[in-house]
Amino acid sequence: MKSVITFEDVVAAAARIAPFCHRTPVMTSGTLDALSGARLFFKPENLQRTGSFKCRGASSAVSVLAAAGARAVATHSAGNHGAALAYAARAHGLACHVVVPATAPRVKKDAIEGYGARLVLCEPTLAARETTCAAVCAETGATLVPPYDHPDIMAGQGTVALELLQDAPKLDALVIPVGGGGLCAGACVAARALSPGVRLFGAEPALADDARRSLAAGSIIPSTYPDTVADGLRTSLGELTFPVLRTHLEDILTVDEAGILEAMESIYTRLKLVVEPSGAVGLAVLFAHRERFAGLRVGVVLSGGNVDPSRLGEFFSARRAS
Amino acid sequence: MKSVITFEDVVAAAARIAPFCHRTPVMTSGTLDALSGARLFFKPENLQRTGSFKCRGASSAVSVLAAAGARAVATHSAGNHGAALAYAARAHGLACHVVVPATAPRVKKDAIEGYGARLVLCEPTLAARETTCAAVCAETGATLVPPYDHPDIMAGQGTVALELLQDAPKLDALVIPVGGGGLCAGACVAARALSPGVRLFGAEPALADDARRSLAAGSIIPSTYPDTVADGLRTSLGELTFPVLRTHLEDILTVDEAGILEAMESIYTRLKLVVEPSGAVGLAVLFAHRERFAGLRVGVVLSGGNVDPSRLGEFFSARRAS
Repeated sequence: MKSVITFEDVVAAAARIAPFCHRTPVMTSGTLDALSGARLFFKPENLQRTGSFKCRGASSAVSVLAAAGARAVATHSAGNHGAALAYAARAHGLACHVVVPATAPRVKKDAIEGYGARLVLCEPTLAARETTCAAVCAETGATLVPPYDHPDIMAGQGTVALELLQDAPKLDALVIPVGGGGLCAGACVAARALSPGVRLFGAEPALADDARRSLAAGSIIPSTYPDTVADGLRTSLGELTFPVLRTHLEDILTVDEAGILEAMESIYTRLKLVVEPSGAVGLAVLFAHRERFAGLRVGVVLSGGNVDPSRLGEFFSARRAS
Repeated sequence: MKSVITFEDVVAAAARIAPFCHRTPVMTSGTLDALSGARLFFKPENLQRTGSFKCRGASSAVSVLAAAGARAVATHSAGNHGAALAYAARAHGLACHVVVPATAPRVKKDAIEGYGARLVLCEPTLAARETTCAAVCAETGATLVPPYDHPDIMAGQGTVALELLQDAPKLDALVIPVGGGGLCAGACVAARALSPGVRLFGAEPALADDARRSLAAGSIIPSTYPDTVADGLRTSLGELTFPVLRTHLEDILTVDEAGILEAMESIYTRLKLVVEPSGAVGLAVLFAHRERFAGLRVGVVLSGGNVDPSRLGEFFSARRAS
C-alpha cells in the first residue's frame, strides 16, 4: 500500500512552513535524565507559535490552499488546531471559522479569537462538531481543514521529528503523544526515513487508550471522549493516520492521570516550561515505563503549552492529594 | 573612582563560566510586543542551570576560589544564590554550606540540598543570616561567597547582558530587576561597554523600592525586607553594587504587586515559561511604564523560575481577585 505521506512530503512541508513557524530548540535536563534512567531530548512545541505543534500542520495545509486560491478555511477543534488554523489563515490572508466545544478551556477560545478567527460554539461531541462545521462550510464557502486526518496536516506535524532528529542525532527511540494521530503519523514517517532503526512509541493517557486498543485490534476503535486531564488526546484515530501508526509504531504506552500530572510538574520545576497536560504525556510514559527505555537516548515531544493559569493550582494540588 | 568591575572582568567571567552555565536564548513574542507597545527581547534566565542567573555569578566566584585552592564555600541566601553556589561548588569539587531563612520556599531548599550542599536554617533577618553564616565559616573553614556584593559575582552576572547584546544587537534600553544589585551592576557594566548609548533601567517592586530610594538619596537606604511577592528582590543594595548602579542607571522604575502577577501570568500564557514573581518584575515595569518605552527595542531579563508549583494557584487566583 502506498503511504499516505512520504518523507519528501515532510521535507516539502518544512519549506512551506518555515516563514510561519519557529524551529523550536532541543532541551535537556540532567535531573530528568536521572529521574527517568534514560537520556532525554525534549522538543518543546509549547514554545511553537500558537503554543503547540498544531501551528505546523495548519501552516502546511493553509499554505497549499492559499496557493490554490482558497479564500476561507474552517475547522472543528478542541482548541489548539483551531488557534493554529486561525493564525495560519490570518498569516495567509484567508478568513477562518472555528467550531469549538463550549467546554473547551477559556485560554484556547481566547487564543482563537485573538488570531482573528470567528468562533462557533457547539456541544462537546464529535457528531455536533462535524455537523456544525459542515454547516459553517456550506454557509461561508470555507474549505474544511480537519485537525489531523489530512496529508498536508500530517506532513506539517512531521517536521517536529525532522528537526528533532537533525538537532539530536543518534536517538534510539522517540515518544510521541497520540490523539488523532496526525503528529504521531507525521513524526513516524520523518523519523523512519532519517533514522531507519529508531524505535517509535506512541503515548496515551490510560483513560483514553483508544489508539492502543485500535492497534491491538487491527481496526479503529472510536474514542468515547473520556474525561482525561489530557484534553488534547481525547480524539479518535483517523482513516489516514491509523495505517501509518500501524506500520511504524513498536507500541503505544499508557500512563494514568496521576502520572500525567507528576510529569507536568516535573516539566514545570525542572525545565521551567509551561506545558498543558497533553504535552506532558510523553514524559509521563517514560516515567511509567522506565524499564523500556533504560539507558536509551530518547526524543520526547512536549506537544503544547496552552493551559489556563487559573487551573494550575488545581492540577498541582490534585497531584499532592493523590 | 575606579570601577569595582570592568568590561574585561565580565568577559573573563564569561570564559570561566562557559563549562558550567547555559548560554540562554533570546525570546520574542508578537503578542507581548503589542501589549507593551515596545519591541521586547527576553533573556530567559529561568532556563539557566539551577533555574536562575545566580548560576553565573556563583560559577564565576567558585571558579576563582577553586583555582586558588579553596576547599569549601558558604553563603546566606534567600534561595537562588544558595542553589547556584551548591551547584557550582559541586561542579568544582568543593564542599558547600548554605544558610537559608526558614521561611524560604520549599522548592528552593530542596534544590540546594539536591545539589549536595548542607542546609543551615536561620531566622528570616539579615542579622541572623550574617551571624549564622559567620559561625558556619568559622566552624568549617569555608570561604564566604556573598550573594551579590563581590566583584567575581557581579562580573558573572554581567554575562547575562553580554550575551543579550551579542544576540539582540541595537537595543535601545535594558530593564533589569534589582535586589542586591549584583545582576544589575554587572549588566550595566557589560551593556555600557558593548552599547555606549543604551539606556539602563532597574526594576523593583513598589513595596521593595529601597534601591530607587537609595539612588534618589545618594546613599544606601537599607531594605526592611518587605513582604513583596517578588521574594528574590527584598534585599538591600551593597557597598560595591550601589556605586555602579548610581553611575549607569537612568532610573529605577517600580510596579505594584498586582502588576507583577499580571506580568507573570503573561509570561506563562504567552512565552510558556515558568518564572518566579521576581523574574516577572522586568516585564511588569514595562507594562506599568509603557510611555517610557513606546516603540523602543528593549532587552528584558527574566531572572529566574524557581517557584513552588503548589503556589501557582494562589498567585493566579490572587490576580483574578484583585
